[in-house]
Amino acid sequence: MGQLVQITTGEGRVWRGTLVPSHELSGERIVQLKLESGYNVGLHLGPSDRVEALPGAPAAPEKEAPATRTNDRSTAEDRPWIALLSTGGTIASRVDYRTGGVRPVRTEREVLGFFPDLDKDGPVRMVTVSDRLSEEIRPEDWLSLAREIVRVFGEGAQGVVVTHGTDTMAYTSAALAFLLEDLPGPVVLVGSQRSPDRPSSDAFTNIVQAARLARHPDLGEVVVLMHEGLSDDRFAVHRGTRVRKMHSSRRDAFRSRDGPPLGSIDGETLTFCGDFRHRSNGPARLSGTLDPRASILWFHPGLDPLRAAAFVKGQRGVVIAGTGLGHMSLEHLPWIRSAIAEGTVVVMTTQCLAGPSDPYVYSTGRELLRAGVLYGEDLHPETAYAKLLWALGQSNDPAEVRRRMLEERAGEFEARHQAVEPG
Amino acid sequence: MGQLVQITTGEGRVWRGTLVPSHELSGERIVQLKLESGYNVGLHLGPSDRVEALPGAPAAPEKEAPATRTNDRSTAEDRPWIALLSTGGTIASRVDYRTGGVRPVRTEREVLGFFPDLDKDGPVRMVTVSDRLSEEIRPEDWLSLAREIVRVFGEGAQGVVVTHGTDTMAYTSAALAFLLEDLPGPVVLVGSQRSPDRPSSDAFTNIVQAARLARHPDLGEVVVLMHEGLSDDRFAVHRGTRVRKMHSSRRDAFRSRDGPPLGSIDGETLTFCGDFRHRSNGPARLSGTLDPRASILWFHPGLDPLRAAAFVKGQRGVVIAGTGLGHMSLEHLPWIRSAIAEGTVVVMTTQCLAGPSDPYVYSTGRELLRAGVLYGEDLHPETAYAKLLWALGQSNDPAEVRRRMLEERAGEFEARHQAVEPG
Repeated sequence: MGQLVQITTGEGRVWRGTLVPSHELSGERIVQLKLESGYNVGLHLGPSDRVEALPGAPAAPEKEAPATRTNDRSTAEDRPWIALLSTGGTIASRVDYRTGGVRPVRTEREVLGFFPDLDKDGPVRMVTVSDRLSEEIRPEDWLSLAREIVRVFGEGAQGVVVTHGTDTMAYTSAALAFLLEDLPGPVVLVGSQRSPDRPSSDAFTNIVQAARLARHPDLGEVVVLMHEGLSDDRFAVHRGTRVRKMHSSRRDAFRSRDGPPLGSIDGETLTFCGDFRHRSNGPARLSGTLDPRASILWFHPGLDPLRAAAFVKGQRGVVIAGTGLGHMSLEHLPWIRSAIAEGTVVVMTTQCLAGPSDPYVYSTGRELLRAGVLYGEDLHPETAYAKLLWALGQSNDPAEVRRRMLEERAGEFEARHQAVEPG
Repeated sequence: MGQLVQITTGEGRVWRGTLVPSHELSGERIVQLKLESGYNVGLHLGPSDRVEALPGAPAAPEKEAPATRTNDRSTAEDRPWIALLSTGGTIASRVDYRTGGVRPVRTEREVLGFFPDLDKDGPVRMVTVSDRLSEEIRPEDWLSLAREIVRVFGEGAQGVVVTHGTDTMAYTSAALAFLLEDLPGPVVLVGSQRSPDRPSSDAFTNIVQAARLARHPDLGEVVVLMHEGLSDDRFAVHRGTRVRKMHSSRRDAFRSRDGPPLGSIDGETLTFCGDFRHRSNGPARLSGTLDPRASILWFHPGLDPLRAAAFVKGQRGVVIAGTGLGHMSLEHLPWIRSAIAEGTVVVMTTQCLAGPSDPYVYSTGRELLRAGVLYGEDLHPETAYAKLLWALGQSNDPAEVRRRMLEERAGEFEARHQAVEPG
């Protein structure tokens, strides 16, 4: 125990860390390592795995220069750093005692004032991207944020934390996942459901965990980190394209679609439940742009086809939240056919918000498919919308936009991954 | 065991049934009765409860004339009967082997052909109200269905089963709950997720349970009955105003909002988890009508305020599915203020689909409230929409419509029932 070791697996993967006591339930051949990132991993040792004792005390992160783990902030410049991009929201809000409501904090100083321990694991460079509640964030803000992320990775950030209001955080995480390519580190969106000057706030624990996750030596995708369950020290790591706010007030409001989250943090231990995208060698880059000429239409009994037609008119795309497997009244076929003839991309999803859309089960789905409706498989309407804005930004040709919509880009089609392997 | 007894509680409630063995975990003072409806109830006996042994064998239902429990269908006319109103949907669908898709069955004969055992507990009178998949059902169909329900209760039905496509069943159940008053028996909506000519179909078990529940001696409200969990013999009874289809393909697709369903059926036992509305003395009646000049608008980042304004223009009401506690960008304030000034009722709900809406937590909610937006508490957007059509049908005065929207009518505001007592 306490020995610094390096484990090389049969597949050539290298883990370095300090041996720590295993869980009581662990089998004989499982060793538990504390990595430099602060996370523990349990490794199941096979006959082809090689274990070496290393000299010296603190473990070095896998892909980083050795860092002395001190709280001496004066040596910050040459130590690995993460960027914290602040956009506003409850995590950076406080109660306005005049009105009793919550308002965004206005200055970086106020934010740092809330989280004095944020940089205890290493330097954090803060950038205020916006200071709005998340219902005010627009697609052009997604683009600015993506550009800012590319910039800070270009300057050498090890990872990025984005503080964000929870209301539209899942829209933003999906948009960033489609916009960003070759990420050399994690982009962790984090919010809180209770403002940081309230006793029950989840702001402190969420942001501290997000900062740790941003230093993860291997993760290279856009994720959302929020509380999981009712315990104070459990957190879920959701894939940015599979997550949704499913409760208006609980701390564990976020859920991954149709299964467990990508990863779970329980106290000191991070466990991935599925394959995650690994850090690229970079440089991070922005893939194209967004075209915001699209929107989401909720189908319901009594929805007037003329009104729906007028709502869609003049846009390049629409995501319909249909019923069940992706249905709507066939009264709407005339405007759908006209819109498609004019080059509008019509995407069908399900308002059930779980389970697939599927045009092949009922006659209605077949009719809509024949009319040219594109079925968005198991995408949330919000994710389909973010992807549509991105796909529209790639090309003016509807056929090319449709092709992009169906091509997997950021782990968004869970139904295509039948076998989920541990990462 | 096997003795027919009558139990009169301290509060004057009377239960008659046959004593059956209690569950192993039941305490000494809990007796289990099999009622004539076929359901078992567990009764916790208090000191003021009175138990009498009754002569004769089968128990009589509380409010019905004694019925001999035989399969002799020739005596059907003078035995208690239920009505089965068929509207179409998967439960009355079959695979079209030409296309491989599912199509509605077209005749009552076809429906009866599927469910030969439907009337084994007593007569069932069938009425075909429509034969459409549920995405084709419109608010005017909700009205026709409500009128038909009033008619069959008027003719003496003990209860009503409505077979319905699952896609929009929760919209219909909410609309019926707001439209119908003084129900002298249950109205049980039932559907299936797999068509009855497929081996995995849930149509048979669901419809048989629905027919039993329609004979319940005490229930007098609109409910949805569907599978619960993965077992074949568990069913959930959802309050018609608190339920939503939350999965596109699973048999247990329906969920009650923010808590357990109103009741659960496990094999032979029906257990109510909350207070239910009891049978009225009738006669059932229709309260007013529906005004369909309203719709649901899904707010999302990038939603153009001018487009939203045009979508709402000319309608008497709109339900907004806002983010989080019921928010949207304040860019939309100008059209909201104009719409309200013109007499449109603007109702806010949450697209999270769980948890309350609440205008008092954030500055955005307060601004929307000040502009005259009505917060729909913890109503699903669909329930709020059905209630809005009903409220608009009650009055031309927006103030009166708003008053109706906030007045509880059919157990729709769960947040107001902090203490839930067993029924």
